[in-house]
Amino acid sequence: MLTKSTIKFIKSLQEKKYRKQEQCFVVEGAKSVEEVLQSDFGVEMLVASPEFVQSVESWRSNIQIFEAKPTEMAGLGDFQSNDAALAVVRMKPKTEPVVSPNSFTLLLDDIRDPGNLGTIIRTADWYGIQTIIASEETVDFYSPKVINSTKGSFIRIHFSNADLSQVLQKQTALPVYGAFLDGEDVHTIQFPKGGLLVIGNESKGISPTVEKFVTNRVTIPRYGKAESLNAAIATAILLDNIKR
Amino acid sequence: MLTKSTIKFIKSLQEKKYRKQEQCFVVEGAKSVEEVLQSDFGVEMLVASPEFVQSVESWRSNIQIFEAKPTEMAGLGDFQSNDAALAVVRMKPKTEPVVSPNSFTLLLDDIRDPGNLGTIIRTADWYGIQTIIASEETVDFYSPKVINSTKGSFIRIHFSNADLSQVLQKQTALPVYGAFLDGEDVHTIQFPKGGLLVIGNESKGISPTVEKFVTNRVTIPRYGKAESLNAAIATAILLDNIKR
Repeated sequence: MLTKSTIKFIKSLQEKKYRKQEQCFVVEGAKSVEEVLQSDFGVEMLVASPEFVQSVESWRSNIQIFEAKPTEMAGLGDFQSNDAALAVVRMKPKTEPVVSPNSFTLLLDDIRDPGNLGTIIRTADWYGIQTIIASEETVDFYSPKVINSTKGSFIRIHFSNADLSQVLQKQTALPVYGAFLDGEDVHTIQFPKGGLLVIGNESKGISPTVEKFVTNRVTIPRYGKAESLNAAIATAILLDNIKR
Repeated sequence: MLTKSTIKFIKSLQEKKYRKQEQCFVVEGAKSVEEVLQSDFGVEMLVASPEFVQSVESWRSNIQIFEAKPTEMAGLGDFQSNDAALAVVRMKPKTEPVVSPNSFTLLLDDIRDPGNLGTIIRTADWYGIQTIIASEETVDFYSPKVINSTKGSFIRIHFSNADLSQVLQKQTALPVYGAFLDGEDVHTIQFPKGGLLVIGNESKGISPTVEKFVTNRVTIPRYGKAESLNAAIATAILLDNIKR
């Protein structure tokens, strides 16, 4: 049975302060919980329906397991309804990001919307991106809305926070792509195998300090009248053009 | 000054029931309000900072204008903070959607997330799409979250709701594209000038009744491991490949 203090603990992980203190975060929904149980993330606690618990108990005995009714699970996490499973997962220790010269690395310059960050991670995973480095101001990777909108892709992406200027200072051998209004048409560029792609903030775009490091200014051609594209949408279109 | 009953009226427009009853919806933020004032939408009421009111008063005298402080405007709409402007706008009368044979028309088969719908409208506007037809189950076009995430593009798109099967039954001359896992690679297809593009529901994809009308099954190639793409992301990538 879920005690009041366990409920309080799980709910506290909605807030960044407590996630940092506990070094834990929440994963919701049967599919993502299944995936995280099979990953190399450490799962501390599982709250799930009897059916779900039965399906995993045999191969995971080192975690705290609570059977719960849908009514008990409602309100524990960010989902409006979740009748199957919720896991409390341990954050991985921070490691230095590795920028490979043979693939593309995504650099996020101050993405603020959790839905955008989650969708960028999911899209990057679709396009085979392995490393994402985000500015310190970027919304918390472990926020429930970010984790939920990655649809499980948070497991496969190597994500880290860093000062982007410092990262870029070290990468002088690789081309650095960034989207601007005055760049080269992405439909006609021949992209190399490896490089860095910078995605700017939702309203301000790429910051001046990061812009200095951009070697290749690119533009997504516009055929209509919208003034701009959403940051996650722009990321997807750039990755599709880079990979094709 | 804003009276209690005006505040109540504006707040009621957060709900679909009252929007339908009043045939009005809310537009928030200086930029979108400016755009809607310059459009052919009828603006009923403007709540704005004295500076904003001064900038528009001279050329719009047939609307109710209220000057308000940021504290008064907070909580009126969906924005967490909005210190500039909010408008109550009249819905346009419903008209039959026109499917042009010389351009692409977007068909939305049950898009449920307001952020996705808004982003799809904004992206469609970027790619010069003029007409979007959505199934009756699709989230309400006039919902504040939809309107806000279009970033003003709701003004330029001809949007209507209809039974998609009935629309498709009449369009036998045009190719109907839909994304499936077993389709032709969008990177190698030569798209025509005109056609219909169907976007399916976030979790279920294109429904069987609509799938019957799809003449061209297409696939966005995957280079990594994510299981699927977000509906708005898929729309963007398809449109970029159609238009290039």
